[in-house]
Amino acid sequence: MKQIVLKHALNARPIASDLTMIEAPKPPCPEDGIVAKVLYLSLDPYVGSRLRGAHMGEPAPVPMLEMIPGAIVGRVEQSRSAKFREGDIIHSMDGGWAQWIALSSKSARRINPEPDHLSAHVGVLGMPGLTAWAGMTQLAKTTIGDVVLVDAAAGPVGGTVGQVARINGATRVIGIAGGAEKCALVKERYQFDACIDYKQPNWLDALDAALGSPPTVHFENVGMNILLPALQRLKPYGRIVLCGLVDQYHATTPAPQIPPGLIVAKRAQLFGLVVYDFYPQFDAYVDQATEWIKTGALIYVEDRVRGLENAPAHFERLMRGENVGKAIVVVSDDAQ
Amino acid sequence: MKQIVLKHALNARPIASDLTMIEAPKPPCPEDGIVAKVLYLSLDPYVGSRLRGAHMGEPAPVPMLEMIPGAIVGRVEQSRSAKFREGDIIHSMDGGWAQWIALSSKSARRINPEPDHLSAHVGVLGMPGLTAWAGMTQLAKTTIGDVVLVDAAAGPVGGTVGQVARINGATRVIGIAGGAEKCALVKERYQFDACIDYKQPNWLDALDAALGSPPTVHFENVGMNILLPALQRLKPYGRIVLCGLVDQYHATTPAPQIPPGLIVAKRAQLFGLVVYDFYPQFDAYVDQATEWIKTGALIYVEDRVRGLENAPAHFERLMRGENVGKAIVVVSDDAQ
Repeated sequence: MKQIVLKHALNARPIASDLTMIEAPKPPCPEDGIVAKVLYLSLDPYVGSRLRGAHMGEPAPVPMLEMIPGAIVGRVEQSRSAKFREGDIIHSMDGGWAQWIALSSKSARRINPEPDHLSAHVGVLGMPGLTAWAGMTQLAKTTIGDVVLVDAAAGPVGGTVGQVARINGATRVIGIAGGAEKCALVKERYQFDACIDYKQPNWLDALDAALGSPPTVHFENVGMNILLPALQRLKPYGRIVLCGLVDQYHATTPAPQIPPGLIVAKRAQLFGLVVYDFYPQFDAYVDQATEWIKTGALIYVEDRVRGLENAPAHFERLMRGENVGKAIVVVSDDAQ
Repeated sequence: MKQIVLKHALNARPIASDLTMIEAPKPPCPEDGIVAKVLYLSLDPYVGSRLRGAHMGEPAPVPMLEMIPGAIVGRVEQSRSAKFREGDIIHSMDGGWAQWIALSSKSARRINPEPDHLSAHVGVLGMPGLTAWAGMTQLAKTTIGDVVLVDAAAGPVGGTVGQVARINGATRVIGIAGGAEKCALVKERYQFDACIDYKQPNWLDALDAALGSPPTVHFENVGMNILLPALQRLKPYGRIVLCGLVDQYHATTPAPQIPPGLIVAKRAQLFGLVVYDFYPQFDAYVDQATEWIKTGALIYVEDRVRGLENAPAHFERLMRGENVGKAIVVVSDDAQ
């Protein structure tokens, strides 16, 4: 089978040519586990730091040998687990950039095989969606009257943050994204009240005009260059969810940090969010979000390529922030 | 009457010789207000930055003219307010370093005239106590099983933080303070489980040994040099109350800040605390804390001088961290 590996150890943000496709033996089925054919592969920013051994202390994959990790949707081809049968559709966070994956039964969740939304299980119905939902409902606890600000708003986390906040009763939902195409998506598809292009000069003036009143909640996906102006504008007693700091994953200079006096002056509440903590609520979230998708309350947008060989270039575009919507690789020819 | 004023505008941490005592006319009684004889004057670290116009945006007092602001306990001598009668004992946050104070009726709270604990109304029953109580019960919500860490533990805020946490069920309460005398007070009088002297080399090793298990709650009174090691040691999902940053009020170099990635990795919750927000709960707190004092659950220690003329030197000792217990000036000859 085909799989993608690192060519060499990395010291900087990965680019497509740091990765290569190799032939590898199809994995044997582990005891109490399964082998699944990969239908969809998720491309996620955290994988960029994971490839450098800089994510949550996990080591980088061994170059030319170990596959690149990633969330997948797959179809069970072999099972030595009582929990799975051949043909089951599964989601796993412990998948990888390959055509087939061997998984322990604990690493896979059976999902609704409805073909319309299969790929959404690595996006709005997967880890990015769960992240957004956890931040809005479990930490910031958005409710009626909130003014919610979120960056990387065209992505699957940011886009879901704003939509979940709106479902929870937020009065106003403002996105920040890079470029006109992303901002159009945020406003027209995700139905945010406004989206500010941070690549424009005077974007902070545009942000102030769009906000109208200070944000009561901010969800941070990017880093200090957005977080600091958001904290400065935060309404007293506002809540900030710190989730991703993608800008800082590959920074070569010391990252700016949070001035503690500003937290005190704002009486701000800050919450660190790691999505792994919310896995016990995964199925409940997926049931809820599936309903929202069916009623049109929750919209998702995908940025797809077909074929594992196109994963490295698609990943480089994600690393450069050039994706518009959730970055996905359709790995199997028989996936929609 | 006598009052203390600034000699000149300040650009650095105040010392005793920046202040001087002058004669001034006794203030007239304002309409709907009172004149009170000052019995006790509170000396507080925030006044140091207030004198430089660097506290909450309030301007510095005019040199040689305006008195230094401070919380007081006083006795009403004249009243043009229906709310107060001659002889009432009052607490005010809007007092100052003088023998008599004119106050609007809104700026004074009548307090229990029990002479045993009168001066405590500028300490454990005043703003410092309310600060500690708000941090522990309203923000961090300490409860059974918590391991609580607090710095400036010999002071009226830190000492009360640990004792309120213990009353709330905290399993372990660890203080940080500067010097053996302060640490002895924290352990022997406030009954903390341990107190670490941050002026000792290897104090972080001593802290680790004293903690046993990671803190679940940290209350910050000092600044980043304590906050950063506390955050590094925090148990995942731990809570941090950011209250005072005294170390930074007079720093001449840019203050270090909080690394956002560490908040995420710890899933930490941070709360900015400004005590003014909790004034509506002042009387309820005082009633509760008075009971705790009577039962011996809450101990307070004062560091007193007699005579307004000794206030500047006592304040300089506070600014240097040399006070042991709540810094108070007994202003009136007829105060205990």
